[in-house]
Amino acid sequence: MSQTTEQKFMALLKEQASYGEAIGLMAWDMRTKAPKKGIDNRSEVLGVLSQKVHEIQTSDEMKSYIDELKGKVTNPVVQKSLEEAEEAYDKTAKIPTKEYREYVTLQSKAESMWAEAKENNDFESFRPYLEKLVEYNRRFADYWGYENHRYDALLHNYEPGVTVEVIDRVFPQVRQALTELLGKIQSAPNQPDPSVLKGQFPKEMQEKFSLEILKRMGYDFEAGRLDETVHPFAIGLNMNDVRVTTKYDESDFRTAVFGTIHEGGHALYEQNIDPKLAFTPLATGTSMGIHESQSLFWENFISRNEAFWENHYDLFKSFAPESFKDLPMDDFYRAINEVKPSLIRIEADELTYCLHIMVRYELEKALIGGEIEVKDLPQLWNEKMEEYLGVRPANDAEGVLQDIHWSGGDFGYFPSYALGYMYAAQFAYQMKNDLDIEAFIRAGDLEKIQQWLTKNIHQFGKMKKPLEILNDVTGEGLNPDYIIQYLTEKYKKIYQF
Amino acid sequence: MSQTTEQKFMALLKEQASYGEAIGLMAWDMRTKAPKKGIDNRSEVLGVLSQKVHEIQTSDEMKSYIDELKGKVTNPVVQKSLEEAEEAYDKTAKIPTKEYREYVTLQSKAESMWAEAKENNDFESFRPYLEKLVEYNRRFADYWGYENHRYDALLHNYEPGVTVEVIDRVFPQVRQALTELLGKIQSAPNQPDPSVLKGQFPKEMQEKFSLEILKRMGYDFEAGRLDETVHPFAIGLNMNDVRVTTKYDESDFRTAVFGTIHEGGHALYEQNIDPKLAFTPLATGTSMGIHESQSLFWENFISRNEAFWENHYDLFKSFAPESFKDLPMDDFYRAINEVKPSLIRIEADELTYCLHIMVRYELEKALIGGEIEVKDLPQLWNEKMEEYLGVRPANDAEGVLQDIHWSGGDFGYFPSYALGYMYAAQFAYQMKNDLDIEAFIRAGDLEKIQQWLTKNIHQFGKMKKPLEILNDVTGEGLNPDYIIQYLTEKYKKIYQF
Repeated sequence: MSQTTEQKFMALLKEQASYGEAIGLMAWDMRTKAPKKGIDNRSEVLGVLSQKVHEIQTSDEMKSYIDELKGKVTNPVVQKSLEEAEEAYDKTAKIPTKEYREYVTLQSKAESMWAEAKENNDFESFRPYLEKLVEYNRRFADYWGYENHRYDALLHNYEPGVTVEVIDRVFPQVRQALTELLGKIQSAPNQPDPSVLKGQFPKEMQEKFSLEILKRMGYDFEAGRLDETVHPFAIGLNMNDVRVTTKYDESDFRTAVFGTIHEGGHALYEQNIDPKLAFTPLATGTSMGIHESQSLFWENFISRNEAFWENHYDLFKSFAPESFKDLPMDDFYRAINEVKPSLIRIEADELTYCLHIMVRYELEKALIGGEIEVKDLPQLWNEKMEEYLGVRPANDAEGVLQDIHWSGGDFGYFPSYALGYMYAAQFAYQMKNDLDIEAFIRAGDLEKIQQWLTKNIHQFGKMKKPLEILNDVTGEGLNPDYIIQYLTEKYKKIYQF
Repeated sequence: MSQTTEQKFMALLKEQASYGEAIGLMAWDMRTKAPKKGIDNRSEVLGVLSQKVHEIQTSDEMKSYIDELKGKVTNPVVQKSLEEAEEAYDKTAKIPTKEYREYVTLQSKAESMWAEAKENNDFESFRPYLEKLVEYNRRFADYWGYENHRYDALLHNYEPGVTVEVIDRVFPQVRQALTELLGKIQSAPNQPDPSVLKGQFPKEMQEKFSLEILKRMGYDFEAGRLDETVHPFAIGLNMNDVRVTTKYDESDFRTAVFGTIHEGGHALYEQNIDPKLAFTPLATGTSMGIHESQSLFWENFISRNEAFWENHYDLFKSFAPESFKDLPMDDFYRAINEVKPSLIRIEADELTYCLHIMVRYELEKALIGGEIEVKDLPQLWNEKMEEYLGVRPANDAEGVLQDIHWSGGDFGYFPSYALGYMYAAQFAYQMKNDLDIEAFIRAGDLEKIQQWLTKNIHQFGKMKKPLEILNDVTGEGLNPDYIIQYLTEKYKKIYQF
């Protein structure tokens, strides 16, 4: 092995990461600051830079470094970077260039067709695009290869190591427990009253409270910032520039407050990756599921926890409108934890959320597996919603058309959300063994929690695969018992059944 | 000529422009929004993308297109783009790669050494770096070539067509007229009282007034935005995304108000370039001097004009602190036009500004010509300041070290500022022949003025060279009579001599 080749390889990865940071900044800017007339031009610029990243990823130069260095590298960062680069190279190399190009064109067209179809509640106009997207994804899965189920090849892109076999073992257990729990909740006499949360809550005050909570969580404002947007997200441009965005609804503070904490959880992950991974493909969260476990952990396990409000309710009231002044904390706490089956995933509560995911998982698995076709989707969607959640969409806009994912060809992504819940519950259980987490939450000492997450999860970036982290932290694999136990205990107390 | 080659050439320019837009956005972000800890990483990313632009500019691919297309192109946009690309290629190709690399390293080092030297008022610590920068620039000028004066080769980078011969014809006339005028102003009995402009002026109110004026100037907020920064600038990312920045001084509204109008003038230029020049090297202002003529036109000819305040003074007072309530407009107008020789260029008034530039021009011309050396600079600077402006710096921090330009190797840049004043006066004179400009200003109908500028100047971008625009608009070349006449009339009225 030539030392020079290793340096050249890492320099090429740095070049790639640099384009990635520029692309990330452009994306952030488009969604927060950019004037609307500049968007067309900017989209073309994004196209040029994305193409460049793709070219590097699939270049002969990259291939030659991979071939030359493979099996001859001792530095673990270089070794893991090599694995990532090889996987990215192979993934693209296996798809004929012509098909890849057609697919990229289809993706961008399909996304705008989806937006229109949703707007007009017109599934049929979107159907031909979705059919093609499914067709490409079936083919890509075959190119990439799999052992048992074709859908595994797609799952691998989002949650490497997790397969249909794993999911089909755990999802039904969770579903059964959740539907039972939901039945008990719905028939409990002691229902929370969410109307107590209403009240005109000025944006500026929501922002001040959100900023304060982010700070207490350990979010570093010298390495990040909070801005307003339409569809909130967090983005790591580099580990010292990780930005959070949020959306303010003056008639419902929950959107901004829990949304900011959720994105803040993502941001803490990206801010606390080991600096030695900078400018490598390892300098980001290891998977969609582990990332989601971090946002959900902060949003639900921390900020929808009773102990959290024991400490923060007075602070909250200092920013909140008058109407909260005499609202007892218990009423507030129970209201923010109301469980109510609904049609829209992104508005779902902590309990029913996973059921929304299961509907999507089962449909996309069957689609990719060839057991159902796109034309069957609307009806199957509605039937499953009724079966799992007891609600039935009145139209496709609030049914099968609600999410953007499939229109971008993102099949295999949805399970990450539910996996994130399960990981979060497993991490939370382990954290409680290590620290008196309730005491820290009650004391407002959230940084102790952040430090635990950094030590056990964040610092590694992509140095560990998702199930490797899970095993290292909890000593076991994916185990649905923890989420079931957590939700059961939580809602038993709130709904008193 | 192969059609395909032309398309490939334009695609390569588009790629280059795309990196340019990404670099521009990163620069804007670093100066307005980016968290401080992310700056180091971002600087590296900027380095990677800048290197990429340089590589494209000097690539064999670019060279082959230039050679193949030269003399065979009919489309004028392609033709002008080809000329720009060839000039950029030749300019870089003439410098040995090794020297270029050393120079880039020197530049970034010198800039931080200058900042430190200025901070510590220590010219000697900066001297060796400045000596090397001068040495490189002398050599580069020799590589690039010139007819009469070595300094012409550097001037060409900022103001193509303008030479030492041209400047040495006009600057002395202007200087003589300005110093005579300055004498009359200083001995006039009727001095304005700038203390009437004092008063705590909340930032938010300054911002509201600035936004309103920008809007009235015809600045399109759907293709731009206004943000806060430390050293204000305007930047065109693309012609539909041209951003203005400003700085608020709550004890002196002039910084933000006139600064915003100044940068707004630059921004209007970039917003109104013909869309067909998008993604070519022509989609920007044609030179530093013409650009400055636009900002100075709006800042001085419009917003320091009496008619402007006849219309806008009530609006201003609606945002201004109480202390302005009873201030007569005439006192206000005279105060914002106070002339007072000072040491710092960027704080200079409309009249003495050009004298600051002449000090710099004469010194850098002599430096590059080899008639003086860096060690002579501090004393010569102070002597010239005393001779031209009647003030002498007490130290080098407020003397020769005040400006950043030389530390970045920008020799030949300074004259653009004074040329901008002269161009602006020539344009203003012509505009008055075409429209009743005072009436439009008085009526607050500033868009008519903007439209004239777009029609005569903005739309062309780099399709015309600076002196070509000047000739097309005014029917003559650089003529200092106009600036002299304008300033004489203006100050005669204000100072009543």
